[in-house]
Amino acid sequence: YWIMGVRNCSTGAQQQLQNSATATTSGASAAVSKDETEKNEISSYWGVPTSKLTNKDGTEWKWSCFRPWETYQANTAIDMEKHHAPGNLMDRMAYWTVKRRFGCRAMMLETVAAVPGMVAGMLLHCKSLRSFEHSGGWIKALLEEAENERMHLMTFMEVSQPTWLDRALVFTVQGIFFNAYLLGYVISPKFAHRMVGYLEEEAIHSYTEFLKELDNGNIENVPAPAIAIDYWQLPTDATLRDVVLVVRADEAHHRDVNHFASDIHCQGRQLREAPAPLGYH
Amino acid sequence: YWIMGVRNCSTGAQQQLQNSATATTSGASAAVSKDETEKNEISSYWGVPTSKLTNKDGTEWKWSCFRPWETYQANTAIDMEKHHAPGNLMDRMAYWTVKRRFGCRAMMLETVAAVPGMVAGMLLHCKSLRSFEHSGGWIKALLEEAENERMHLMTFMEVSQPTWLDRALVFTVQGIFFNAYLLGYVISPKFAHRMVGYLEEEAIHSYTEFLKELDNGNIENVPAPAIAIDYWQLPTDATLRDVVLVVRADEAHHRDVNHFASDIHCQGRQLREAPAPLGYH
Ligand SMILES: [Fe+2]
Ligand SMILES: [Fe+2]
Ligand SMILES: [Fe+2]
Ligand SMILES: [Fe+2]
Repeated sequence: YWIMGVRNCSTGAQQQLQNSATATTSGASAAVSKDETEKNEISSYWGVPTSKLTNKDGTEWKWSCFRPWETYQANTAIDMEKHHAPGNLMDRMAYWTVKRRFGCRAMMLETVAAVPGMVAGMLLHCKSLRSFEHSGGWIKALLEEAENERMHLMTFMEVSQPTWLDRALVFTVQGIFFNAYLLGYVISPKFAHRMVGYLEEEAIHSYTEFLKELDNGNIENVPAPAIAIDYWQLPTDATLRDVVLVVRADEAHHRDVNHFASDIHCQGRQLREAPAPLGYH
Repeated sequence: YWIMGVRNCSTGAQQQLQNSATATTSGASAAVSKDETEKNEISSYWGVPTSKLTNKDGTEWKWSCFRPWETYQANTAIDMEKHHAPGNLMDRMAYWTVKRRFGCRAMMLETVAAVPGMVAGMLLHCKSLRSFEHSGGWIKALLEEAENERMHLMTFMEVSQPTWLDRALVFTVQGIFFNAYLLGYVISPKFAHRMVGYLEEEAIHSYTEFLKELDNGNIENVPAPAIAIDYWQLPTDATLRDVVLVVRADEAHHRDVNHFASDIHCQGRQLREAPAPLGYH
């Protein structure tokens, strides 16, 4: 299994894997002409080796943006209907913040969705350092959620290219949302996680609508992009519909994790008191 | 191997692993009395299952702050003397910023050292979202560096408890350094990575001094803390000296990665053009 080959290699990794790093002498590295090499080669006298990974069938792993051990099969059997009934005032505020405000199309949704996990993970990381306390695995869990959302974006941008308007919009929305969520998380982590829980419920709803559009032919069910097939370990003949199914399952898992995190805070506990869910996707 | 048991379980994970989640009915979750359970139990009607991991010998994995597949054996054979000779003005500025300014003790050094990777990873994540571009694995590599540094802190705080003065100092220094590094990275990533490269060279120097103090008996060579034995896969009779050796090896790897990253920028490239080093520690 390729996972073993890479995961357990630690010290021997650089020797075992094909070493294709080029080493130049000190100082010269910065002076290498861009046109010197036709292949997009980067030189570094640090000689940090580049490594080649292979698929199970021996062919070369073609992604550097994610690695074989980061791929998984989504549990699509997860309940899509589960909804956190807003109880107290905080719940209702969190729900109101989200409801129907992010119902735009998939690609734009994902540029926003990848922010909260990163912000929360970063804040917990800094808090762990400041307070000399463990994290209960939550830093990693939240950063992995952010990475998962970013992979959603990388997938959907293969299906539809972003326009200049999209890019301008993302730039603005990210600037505002990043800072707003950061502030919100500092003030009230339980509100922030509850809000993301509801944001994920909205995302599930959006993807369910997406599936309907695919089924009634309004959106063409094109072949799945290669990146999605490798990331979610889909069959080679998978279609956009299969991709939307696994993405929707991801959102349902994020929903659970964030409502869970909010529940922990609601009980007056810290996240680190309840170990973060393992491989929950 | 336990890694297989967990890594490849994806969808089946929650069923296979011992499920010890408690489920209560909706709404009641927040109302559960803190005194109700003697064990520090958290309830969530979301029923996100908690999972138990086991060591190779079948005993229970005791950490939730890190997991078996995040442990590794450090390559302590890495060259500790390698130094990036400052070439241009930027190099000299980066070197000057660091030189002898962070020569305080190990624990304090680590609270600072865990910041740059998080800041850089976070900025690259947001940039990837904004620009609809892949990361070449650098987001993950830099976040893993930050996590590795945080584990250094978690280890050293077992050896010497932080005083109130330490805590106050960390609070202030983190606030300043986080924002300074963020600004620095936005203005010039090549300067920022070069500076961290030099910071790591200083860290290597500090740990070499630490080793000398251990060897001449000025610091007692106490048994290694349990967390270090599990994280670096050390023998059960490992000592503080063994811990310092693997930590120093980590710093040498960070040095290489950051000088490499700076080299890439110096060649007028983006990090994503050169895949991030794999399992380089
Ligand atoms: Fe998503
Ligand atoms: Fe999501
Ligand atoms: Fe360190
Ligand atoms: Fe370091």
